[in-house]
Amino acid sequence: MYTLYEFATSGNCYKLRLTMSLLGIEYSRKQIDITKGESRTPEFLRINPNGRVPVLETPDHRYLPESNAALWYLAMGSKLMPDDKFEQAQAMQWMCFEQYSHEPFIATSRYWMHVLNQADEYQAQLMEKRPKGYEALDVMEKHLSRHNFFVGSQLSVADIALYAYTHVAHEGGFDLSAYSAIKKWFERIEQTNHYISIDQ
Amino acid sequence: MYTLYEFATSGNCYKLRLTMSLLGIEYSRKQIDITKGESRTPEFLRINPNGRVPVLETPDHRYLPESNAALWYLAMGSKLMPDDKFEQAQAMQWMCFEQYSHEPFIATSRYWMHVLNQADEYQAQLMEKRPKGYEALDVMEKHLSRHNFFVGSQLSVADIALYAYTHVAHEGGFDLSAYSAIKKWFERIEQTNHYISIDQ
Repeated sequence: MYTLYEFATSGNCYKLRLTMSLLGIEYSRKQIDITKGESRTPEFLRINPNGRVPVLETPDHRYLPESNAALWYLAMGSKLMPDDKFEQAQAMQWMCFEQYSHEPFIATSRYWMHVLNQADEYQAQLMEKRPKGYEALDVMEKHLSRHNFFVGSQLSVADIALYAYTHVAHEGGFDLSAYSAIKKWFERIEQTNHYISIDQ
Repeated sequence: MYTLYEFATSGNCYKLRLTMSLLGIEYSRKQIDITKGESRTPEFLRINPNGRVPVLETPDHRYLPESNAALWYLAMGSKLMPDDKFEQAQAMQWMCFEQYSHEPFIATSRYWMHVLNQADEYQAQLMEKRPKGYEALDVMEKHLSRHNFFVGSQLSVADIALYAYTHVAHEGGFDLSAYSAIKKWFERIEQTNHYISIDQ
């Protein structure tokens, strides 16, 4: 059985729970409280020298850090991975976009506001992150105004990677009311069989 | 033939030139001067709505943004892509590490100092980036002190992704003199047949 080392409210960790639910993969969960430094202990650094969650432990006890790499591994050969090689590369393109142009702004804002509950303390940093977060949302809205999903015509790893923090962007102070294509895409994902929410 | 839309001195663009050289893939180059806003023109935004280089245009005129996604696409099925699925996921893990924990600190510092030549103007930001850049180098050094390459026993996409900005980290103010394992890994890469340097 797989083991997920996670901080449950993290969108990066939720990506893997959602994927395993959609694919019917069983796993156990180990909580690592990043606010208490539990991802930087000598013991955890042996699992992931980069000191971050999630880490996926495979049934044969190999460790895979980085949410999008673990998501990719779980989805290989499944309905969540496009068959076509160019579409696989497009899925990876959107996952790179998520990690570089989306997560550092939207997820980080949510972490300060929602996880640490320190919006006042981080006010200056939040204001700095906001325009780039909206830029990422604009890129997504533009794509989703012409497509039902990010790659091809069905749900894939790219949608899961981007959904994780976008659907809770309001917890980082982002107003999604004008993003109608994004909101319709939320509904399509949430209607999928075996969908689970971030608090499950 | 492939076309590479690039800003030549960018490590992200060099990843693709190095890969195509190692694999014997022919391509033409189109220069996009990001310091003059050429990646944000309406014409370029049609190619990549996220307004960044590189973009790889395939022989059948499809566009693939994001350096690591294009690198992955070029390498699929080649000697630069591990055969084993877990090792493929490990390669992706290191590429995610590069984009999230390495590039925003080391490449950004190099951009301010070496490309814009504005070390004084960006002094405060450079000081902020430095510790996290060294953290990434420490993670690499630790891995390379026990392994010749990042995944398996031979050069892969993971090494190319990480080599691109690490070997020019000194241009971003990082002192690599204490990183002996990283320097030996540079030599292994530079001795590979059909290796080209970043200024080629």
